[in-house]
Amino acid sequence: MKLISDPGKFIAITEKAGKLKKNIGFVPTMGALHAGHFSLIKQARKENDIVVVSIFVNPAQFGQGEDFKKYPRSFKQDTGFCRKLGVDFVFLPDKDNMYPQGYSTFVSVEPLSGLLCGHSRPGHFRGVATVVAKLLNIVLPDTLYLGQKDAQQAIIISRMVKDLNFPVKVKVMPTVRQEDGLALSSRNAYLSKDQRSVALVLYKALRLAQCMVNNGQRNAARIISRMKQLIEKNKLARIDYIAIVEQEQLKEVKKIIPGTLIALAVKIGRTRLIDNIIIEHI
Amino acid sequence: MKLISDPGKFIAITEKAGKLKKNIGFVPTMGALHAGHFSLIKQARKENDIVVVSIFVNPAQFGQGEDFKKYPRSFKQDTGFCRKLGVDFVFLPDKDNMYPQGYSTFVSVEPLSGLLCGHSRPGHFRGVATVVAKLLNIVLPDTLYLGQKDAQQAIIISRMVKDLNFPVKVKVMPTVRQEDGLALSSRNAYLSKDQRSVALVLYKALRLAQCMVNNGQRNAARIISRMKQLIEKNKLARIDYIAIVEQEQLKEVKKIIPGTLIALAVKIGRTRLIDNIIIEHI
Repeated sequence: MKLISDPGKFIAITEKAGKLKKNIGFVPTMGALHAGHFSLIKQARKENDIVVVSIFVNPAQFGQGEDFKKYPRSFKQDTGFCRKLGVDFVFLPDKDNMYPQGYSTFVSVEPLSGLLCGHSRPGHFRGVATVVAKLLNIVLPDTLYLGQKDAQQAIIISRMVKDLNFPVKVKVMPTVRQEDGLALSSRNAYLSKDQRSVALVLYKALRLAQCMVNNGQRNAARIISRMKQLIEKNKLARIDYIAIVEQEQLKEVKKIIPGTLIALAVKIGRTRLIDNIIIEHI
Repeated sequence: MKLISDPGKFIAITEKAGKLKKNIGFVPTMGALHAGHFSLIKQARKENDIVVVSIFVNPAQFGQGEDFKKYPRSFKQDTGFCRKLGVDFVFLPDKDNMYPQGYSTFVSVEPLSGLLCGHSRPGHFRGVATVVAKLLNIVLPDTLYLGQKDAQQAIIISRMVKDLNFPVKVKVMPTVRQEDGLALSSRNAYLSKDQRSVALVLYKALRLAQCMVNNGQRNAARIISRMKQLIEKNKLARIDYIAIVEQEQLKEVKKIIPGTLIALAVKIGRTRLIDNIIIEHI
């Protein structure tokens, strides 16, 4: 496994891979790797000749007052995981390599970026789209692996890839959960023991929604109302949003149909957690 | 020579070229080809195994009230020129292929895009950067050829290529002029005979500036003032801007040094023309 931090060197390697007709699978991360990332890496390993993981805590996707500085960094542990999982290249650029002085170019996906998480995190998805555009040009992958846990991110990146004609296939892999149902997230590390047990309310609310749908409820407003009630029982939990939307433009739907996305963001203390499910069958 | 209009098909061809280790030279155009374009195509032909020309009048770079509808279109003549010049592929997408329903992604290069031509053409360079990003992903060229006549465009695209790590080299070729000095432009076709003779004032003003520099003048304000006087003698000419700037961030300079860009835009009747020179030696 090779660690590379210079984008210029990385391009040379991936261009060579392209000319050798080797397929590249790519998993972009911000590090603090957990089983959610592992599932992406394993899938990439199964399907490609070469697996690339990037680890870069991207300043462009953090707003003022957000957790850029304290975002968990565990590069040594992360590269250990990558080695065990059979990764070929870890791309570890630094801020100054990615955004040198004079940096001026941004990719935005509108109006998707202003919805759901975009409300409370203005500029976040512009930062995400921009860094992924850069990484795609550096790594030149055949397949890009994303996690369903960040549903809006996956939708926005898929939209960008399609709109800007990036020659890459996007695969979105299912959310990985702890035994009790909490979606894995690097930000779970911020939770105290009490907060950790409160955090389960996101999954409970989604399970309630799924249960209501299974029992014949199709009315989005009623489902949201019950989810809200459930979450608000916890004094430590503050709802950012609960949204029931279609997956193309993230427009609110009144009536649940197959493919409807139910997503929510809840603050537990200072930690903002997100989770979602897709209603597959009705 | 092959004509292709489906971006999907084009990607297959260029990926194949990549795997065959053939170099691709790419000249993006809006058609209405003239000797300025020819010089780019000839250079691409000299330096590459495969030459691709795109012809696409890009709606995203025209503002409201601008000349999108009447922009000269001469696809048949253009493809004839391409054939004669030894072009391998002409990419002729249509609007609905490039910007299908639901299209949402834009690339912006700030603050460069708001300066000079950006003042009177808000959104123009966002449209240019976006379509070039798309074309680069479709054509996957090794070298991109641009004309110095559109100096700000060349600077913005070079910036985008660098910032977003597009794996392509950018070559900017000198402005091609008619015998009397008028810079070639597809928009020259709009000029009446009288306007055509007035249009020469752009080049005359630039020559005056060069002459002043040659004679030792270094003060940008004085040069601009003399250029202004010269142009304002013509009642048919209305100055949009005259700018003396450095080429990195297009910041105004007070004192001319080697590499300084002198650029101007002038409206002759309804036709807005641009031209520029770079002060090479002092």
